[in-house]
Amino acid sequence: MEYRCASLFIIGTELTRGVIADKHGQLMSTELTHLGYRVDRIVIVPDDGTIGSVLRESIEHSDVVLITGGLGPTSDDMTRQIIAAIAGVPLVKDQDAWDDLYRRVGERIYGANERQAMIPAGFERIPNPKGTAPGFKGYFVVDEGVSETRKVACAAMPGPPAEMHEMFFHQVLPWLATLRGDGESGRDEYSVFMIPESKLEDLFDSVAEPGVMMGDRFQEFRISLYLTGSDEQARKRTAERLEAAFGPALMVPGDLQAVDILTRYLEDHHLTVSCAESCTGGLVAKLLTDRPGSSVWFWGGAATYANDAKRRILGVNPETLAVHGAVSEQCVIEMAEGLLALSGTDLALSVSGIAGPDGGTEDKPVGLVWFGFASKTRPTQAVALRMTSWGRDAVRRRAAVSALLLASLYINGNDLLDTVARWQYI
Amino acid sequence: MEYRCASLFIIGTELTRGVIADKHGQLMSTELTHLGYRVDRIVIVPDDGTIGSVLRESIEHSDVVLITGGLGPTSDDMTRQIIAAIAGVPLVKDQDAWDDLYRRVGERIYGANERQAMIPAGFERIPNPKGTAPGFKGYFVVDEGVSETRKVACAAMPGPPAEMHEMFFHQVLPWLATLRGDGESGRDEYSVFMIPESKLEDLFDSVAEPGVMMGDRFQEFRISLYLTGSDEQARKRTAERLEAAFGPALMVPGDLQAVDILTRYLEDHHLTVSCAESCTGGLVAKLLTDRPGSSVWFWGGAATYANDAKRRILGVNPETLAVHGAVSEQCVIEMAEGLLALSGTDLALSVSGIAGPDGGTEDKPVGLVWFGFASKTRPTQAVALRMTSWGRDAVRRRAAVSALLLASLYINGNDLLDTVARWQYI
Repeated sequence: MEYRCASLFIIGTELTRGVIADKHGQLMSTELTHLGYRVDRIVIVPDDGTIGSVLRESIEHSDVVLITGGLGPTSDDMTRQIIAAIAGVPLVKDQDAWDDLYRRVGERIYGANERQAMIPAGFERIPNPKGTAPGFKGYFVVDEGVSETRKVACAAMPGPPAEMHEMFFHQVLPWLATLRGDGESGRDEYSVFMIPESKLEDLFDSVAEPGVMMGDRFQEFRISLYLTGSDEQARKRTAERLEAAFGPALMVPGDLQAVDILTRYLEDHHLTVSCAESCTGGLVAKLLTDRPGSSVWFWGGAATYANDAKRRILGVNPETLAVHGAVSEQCVIEMAEGLLALSGTDLALSVSGIAGPDGGTEDKPVGLVWFGFASKTRPTQAVALRMTSWGRDAVRRRAAVSALLLASLYINGNDLLDTVARWQYI
Repeated sequence: MEYRCASLFIIGTELTRGVIADKHGQLMSTELTHLGYRVDRIVIVPDDGTIGSVLRESIEHSDVVLITGGLGPTSDDMTRQIIAAIAGVPLVKDQDAWDDLYRRVGERIYGANERQAMIPAGFERIPNPKGTAPGFKGYFVVDEGVSETRKVACAAMPGPPAEMHEMFFHQVLPWLATLRGDGESGRDEYSVFMIPESKLEDLFDSVAEPGVMMGDRFQEFRISLYLTGSDEQARKRTAERLEAAFGPALMVPGDLQAVDILTRYLEDHHLTVSCAESCTGGLVAKLLTDRPGSSVWFWGGAATYANDAKRRILGVNPETLAVHGAVSEQCVIEMAEGLLALSGTDLALSVSGIAGPDGGTEDKPVGLVWFGFASKTRPTQAVALRMTSWGRDAVRRRAAVSALLLASLYINGNDLLDTVARWQYI
């Protein structure tokens, strides 16, 4: 049979009470549309079993049914019972799911938790690397009388975004691509930094090989970019042209944060880092300590917001501040070199800019950020970027991501002036 | 009959293709929930007539059906035909709608436009001050056999937000309030810090006055809590009991972040602050600089992650670190006092804890966090909290929020030991 029409179900009383806004519907429908599916309906229901009647009705009209939510351990979470009832099968304990749950929860497993290891008989568990509730996928067999039997594909995923995204992108979408037939072509994931959404789409349109399609997901510190369609070679050529258009280091294969690129390099080379921040005010240090084990390569940071703090902690010359200001090449060089001397780390980075919304001038507009990099083995380098994104938050986030990317390039031996000259779209 | 269960339909192919995100669903469900309605489903469908079958099914289960979209002049916009068909009535030309359309469009009225002046017979036009397509409202009469007849209320509104909002708030909501009978009862918003989701609901259940209901929205650094139902006094008494159960300073009226509570106090009293962080690694400084204008009261911070950084920047005694360790009362006191001396700010705070997942011991388990507060005018205080939440991120976020809340209490003259003793649910 042809898999073409999809119905999406999102379960959550906080959604039907308007307390939070649904994001899964748009996310799933974007990706399904890219795969060539037609999304026939997106249905949001409370977690009280209402889904039963709508789901039965939808199965008559759909080839694919995706469900998020209602897989938790409380009595409200009844997705698995309802699917089992509609499929006409019992719920059975999945040993892998149970083992996985036991590894996570240990002796704290009890009745309610136990229910999370039950899945409808004949359905296949979808592992949940980010939480306790596994998902599952399988088929409703719909007898249409006489000779025809339809197998409606169904996948159930947990509601929390981190868990749902992991399952949807890595397990459910590839399955749906296979069902769709033309899907089999595969799908490549990249992480893209600093590129505005509008530019991303324009650049893609200008370089994509015929048949290659893109999907993207904007996150706080990067964009996840997915290339689908055509064949692997065409996707690869499209990716290479995109990378060239973005400029060096702004697109990497896989699911990576900017901070991971730097810290993997530091770990591999047994190097340590420290950071001196003005406009980002601690954000770079926060990102550098998000991961467990960061004490191996992170010495510490100074959020030297006031000029007095730059002088007292980092030893920045008062004359530098008076003559050139805090947002200047001279200042970030003194910040980085001062911190390098204080910390004894292998690498010291500094950031100073105008985050806005106030404080901009003609010479130093909002969005101007200077970066300094000092080390024991290379001459100090400083570069400036002008962030064109609107808003204090966006400027700060981009400044932090730039600092991390530039630090990787610097410690790796690159010339930063040349690099930022080729970053023309940020 | 009692009007209680509502179904919401949102029509738009750009929604089911994921091109844009729906906002009408959340808007309507929030308001309907306040009126005491239970929203049974929010259904998003393409504008190709798919709505027909879902709508028929929903009418069986709902007392109120609201529809947005599908009222334009193009052939895809078939909301009015479908509603007329389900109601079993013809479409008739509404003279007021026609006159209104003529005033807007003039001689440009033609066949397709003309259709916008047609509404199902027996339904009442809802004027559209912001566009050409009027809405309409009325009843589906559902014969449930024998003696019972239900009148399901139905309103159709255009999809463009400006037009929809105008109609919904000024015409449809008042009508639904009348149908509901009990009408507008009000809604109070609070910000809650550090309380786990499960506890919030338990505590609410144990103290709520009859008829008072809660809604909550979990965000990165707090919970937004909404109390609805009953009357203002009952909601107020419920809020007071919740506050008492949580402990001091963990629940405040309105939409506030923990950092706002501290920085408003600093601003009002012309005070300055600096922060020394270990486990939070820059997060407190980052939060303190999120808002524009923070340079008025923020001097700077030190993310002294390594012990060497605590010694070199803050002057922590190596013997303190050797004897008591970095996560200790002595250490956070020396961190706060060292930073106070270095910065000359009115208040200096320090945080040092075990964020995990590794590094915990029997004496100092993961989640243990020490906080120090020093100022020119009060004796230094230090307190410890044990965060019971799982995960490095959650421990770090809670440590940062605690530091900000405790700093407000300290500078305001409170005894912190007494305060944290009453924080029994974090």
